Amino acid sequence: MVIRYPNGKLYIGTKEDEPKQLKVRASKGTKKKEVSYSNRGKSLEDDLNETNVFYLQQKLAIIHKKPVPIQIVKVDYPARSAAVIREAYFRTPSTTDYNGVYNGYYIDFEAKETDSKTSFPLKNIHPHQMEHMKSVLHQRGISFFIVRFSTLQRNFVVLYEIVERFYENMKNGGRKSIPFTFFETEAIEIHEGYLPRLDYLKAVDVLIADKAVCESEEK
Amino acid sequence: MVIRYPNGKLYIGTKEDEPKQLKVRASKGTKKKEVSYSNRGKSLEDDLNETNVFYLQQKLAIIHKKPVPIQIVKVDYPARSAAVIREAYFRTPSTTDYNGVYNGYYIDFEAKETDSKTSFPLKNIHPHQMEHMKSVLHQRGISFFIVRFSTLQRNFVVLYEIVERFYENMKNGGRKSIPFTFFETEAIEIHEGYLPRLDYLKAVDVLIADKAVCESEEK
Repeated sequence: MVIRYPNGKLYIGTKEDEPKQLKVRASKGTKKKEVSYSNRGKSLEDDLNETNVFYLQQKLAIIHKKPVPIQIVKVDYPARSAAVIREAYFRTPSTTDYNGVYNGYYIDFEAKETDSKTSFPLKNIHPHQMEHMKSVLHQRGISFFIVRFSTLQRNFVVLYEIVERFYENMKNGGRKSIPFTFFETEAIEIHEGYLPRLDYLKAVDVLIADKAVCESEEK
Repeated sequence: MVIRYPNGKLYIGTKEDEPKQLKVRASKGTKKKEVSYSNRGKSLEDDLNETNVFYLQQKLAIIHKKPVPIQIVKVDYPARSAAVIREAYFRTPSTTDYNGVYNGYYIDFEAKETDSKTSFPLKNIHPHQMEHMKSVLHQRGISFFIVRFSTLQRNFVVLYEIVERFYENMKNGGRKSIPFTFFETEAIEIHEGYLPRLDYLKAVDVLIADKAVCESEEK
């Protein structure tokens, strides 16, 4: 299946959606020592959580971040108080971070942030996440990435199928990242706003419409 | 919307699916002291996890149990080894335990086990779970309960909408449980098997077909 986007830049979001003042973020860099992947791209995560709360309240979609899986080893039950976990370890998630339902569609995505100004490194994506997203596609769900270039303060929604092409190419010895210019021309840009913070459902509407066009062309 | 099931008992599953010897389970009772809800009905959870692995391997559906949400307070980073969580607490889940995608449908359910031989107590269901499932319905997902009467060794799939009627009735002073006889006549029974252990997708197929009939009648 080939997904064709309209030529040139595709912007989602109106002028009113744009923040009046650009939010300055503390650049924390990538701490390689961290075991939990949940802290990578914390600010994108915050924005998405706020957005998801907005969607939920407005009855637009039900999308939640999955809790980080934890292996619990030891729990104390102190008298008259709540159980306390005293020894536990982070486990590697076997799926993506976010899923839910939007107007009958199963939505499944991964959020990734990069400091790079020139490309999105594919090493940010785990093989098991790619496998999971491929399965989602097979079950006719909508599977995509939200990628934030944090230094550039720009956010993109990119369909799993597109990332897969780069990923497979990398496995065959090709380049290990997706160029920023590719996002500019082939992905759907989403702008930060006030409410919702990051209106990615607008981009999902485009993905769904594109898929419908492709499926009807295939018939 | 009224969901009509065929009259009389509706059995899903063939003779071959039935286990040759009934599995004897250790009756653990309900430990009221436990804070984590994840340990309630452990054996049903095991069966569902095995079933979900089977569905995943056979490319039939992608359904996962969500990790139990944990509030992490203190983490140690010992040199040359994995991070250790030293203080954390169980949080109440805000959604159901299981969700995923099946042939384009968003699937969302809660698994509950009871020792009672006569009825399913509604206090097993948290108000926030009911709210979540109502929202799922609004977004055109498939929302249901899998209820195990562990003493009777019988399992049922029951649509959220049906449980909702009992739940609302309870809030207005009505009975606090759903009678077992109601499950026998109005829910879809699923039998334990070898592979998959608990083939609930067969019941989901019936739910989807029933919904399609109701929706076409509404038009």
